[in-house]
Amino acid sequence: MEVGLCLSFCNKRWKNPQALAEFVSSLGVRLVQFSWDLVDPWWKEEIRDELAKEYANAFRQRQIEITVSFSGMAAYAYSSLLSEDERVRKMGMTYLKRAIDMTAIMGIPALGTPAGCMESLEGLQNIGRKKAGIEVQDAGKENHGGYVKRGEVRKRLVDDLILLSRYAAQKGLKQLYLEPTPVQTEIPCTALEAKILMEQLSGKTQIPVGLVLDWGHVLCPSFNEEPADMNYWLSACKGYVGACHIQQCDGKMDRHWGFTGQGIVTPEMIRGVLGNPDASGIAHYLEYCPAFETPGEEVVKEIRNSVKYLQLI
Amino acid sequence: MEVGLCLSFCNKRWKNPQALAEFVSSLGVRLVQFSWDLVDPWWKEEIRDELAKEYANAFRQRQIEITVSFSGMAAYAYSSLLSEDERVRKMGMTYLKRAIDMTAIMGIPALGTPAGCMESLEGLQNIGRKKAGIEVQDAGKENHGGYVKRGEVRKRLVDDLILLSRYAAQKGLKQLYLEPTPVQTEIPCTALEAKILMEQLSGKTQIPVGLVLDWGHVLCPSFNEEPADMNYWLSACKGYVGACHIQQCDGKMDRHWGFTGQGIVTPEMIRGVLGNPDASGIAHYLEYCPAFETPGEEVVKEIRNSVKYLQLI
Repeated sequence: MEVGLCLSFCNKRWKNPQALAEFVSSLGVRLVQFSWDLVDPWWKEEIRDELAKEYANAFRQRQIEITVSFSGMAAYAYSSLLSEDERVRKMGMTYLKRAIDMTAIMGIPALGTPAGCMESLEGLQNIGRKKAGIEVQDAGKENHGGYVKRGEVRKRLVDDLILLSRYAAQKGLKQLYLEPTPVQTEIPCTALEAKILMEQLSGKTQIPVGLVLDWGHVLCPSFNEEPADMNYWLSACKGYVGACHIQQCDGKMDRHWGFTGQGIVTPEMIRGVLGNPDASGIAHYLEYCPAFETPGEEVVKEIRNSVKYLQLI
Repeated sequence: MEVGLCLSFCNKRWKNPQALAEFVSSLGVRLVQFSWDLVDPWWKEEIRDELAKEYANAFRQRQIEITVSFSGMAAYAYSSLLSEDERVRKMGMTYLKRAIDMTAIMGIPALGTPAGCMESLEGLQNIGRKKAGIEVQDAGKENHGGYVKRGEVRKRLVDDLILLSRYAAQKGLKQLYLEPTPVQTEIPCTALEAKILMEQLSGKTQIPVGLVLDWGHVLCPSFNEEPADMNYWLSACKGYVGACHIQQCDGKMDRHWGFTGQGIVTPEMIRGVLGNPDASGIAHYLEYCPAFETPGEEVVKEIRNSVKYLQLI
């Protein structure tokens, strides 16, 4: 298979654009997703854009295509577009617009990110209420985990994404992506919710909003009894999936392991997805996230061997 | 023991100041460290400061003291003051000054953070050079892991911290803290390096720069054959340690587990440190970092039980 690469493995390690592009090139990788953990969208425009262009140029010089500009660990800390607090959502929009500016300057056609996070469904106060036998669950599968009104939050998200798509279109972007996660405080976190969200957005945004599916997220235990299965998700979200993140994992947690160790993602499982017509034309990007303490040499070895492993499938 | 709390456990879960302060109060906890993952120092001043003050007021109303304002997951993604790139260091300084502004507005007397990170000692290019038998190690224990000139980077860090301490003093802060980590690309990552850094800073900064030691970091395998032992670090860094982060761990990786499960941090080990005169007056803060997928209810239970466990020691 053709394997692209997320630059998550660089975190706290490698930030030199030339060395990084050379390394990626040496792996025979031709597609990468840029990470905002390398250049912070909040940084002062002149410095930010200069640094961002250095990465874009270094990759381009080596005929590596940066297909998507993707949020990283730093962005993931904040509630962003799913916050209950209007002020935090406003900061989320400002941040994403700055990320769009940076993405446009780099000549990258698409931007991807998870949407943010809501207050936990098991709120600090709810714990007491649950103990007291008070029912805090909303009815229906779609409102799994209840209490927070997912439908309302999603409607607000749709409105924000319509605005954001207008801004992105003005800046020359062609595509936005959301990434479903295995976290119940995020939207979407099930295939059903992803599909509903996509349908609500469809035709209303200036540029299309699609999905990036992550194998490890999909394979985590489901919140609504859907199969934790890539082919199920690809079918449920048919027409909306633009790319996949691939990782080795155990189907219990969102591991982001490389492929040299044990895990449930087998070559057979991968071939079964690649052969699925619903996956046709969808690029796969290895997203390996080592612990910060893992020695650099080990990370390089894991990336090399994992890319080779996937390329041979 | 008196146990304080780092607010790391709130990440992606609980951001409501009132609910959070009420929960912390219900644990019998009277000391907390604020996290920049709750309010981003980059946010627009009016919104940022308004949100930050809501947290400060909510805790203060419940007689909970916020002793330190500490960087979190988002800040940790970037190279900051240890970058080789002057532009990135400049953004690191801007960011930390903004964090100082927010800390001052909240009426918190101290700010703490790791310093940033350098390019990995096993650089992407070095891998090839090492394979070719080229020696890339610097001599001497202090330069463990070699290639990057740690001494030079540290000297630059000292200069930056002198400037930063001046700014912090102007804003009314009384103390800055650095946190040693078990990551070789960071400074300091050994007790020896921490001590050298503290001595280089001593007397030169407008307000003192001290250390926050993390049990799990200290118990990770050492980079320079020092004992991975809290009493050793407390003795080596005597006079500089202002607070400790405490976590359950396995002595292999930086786990940030709670105390309900297995680990090498035993009540005996804790008592041995609390009874050490070098630890006298140093407050301990539980720093539990659950995976994002961990259900909220489980996180609440882990925090409750871990705090109770430590309070009984």
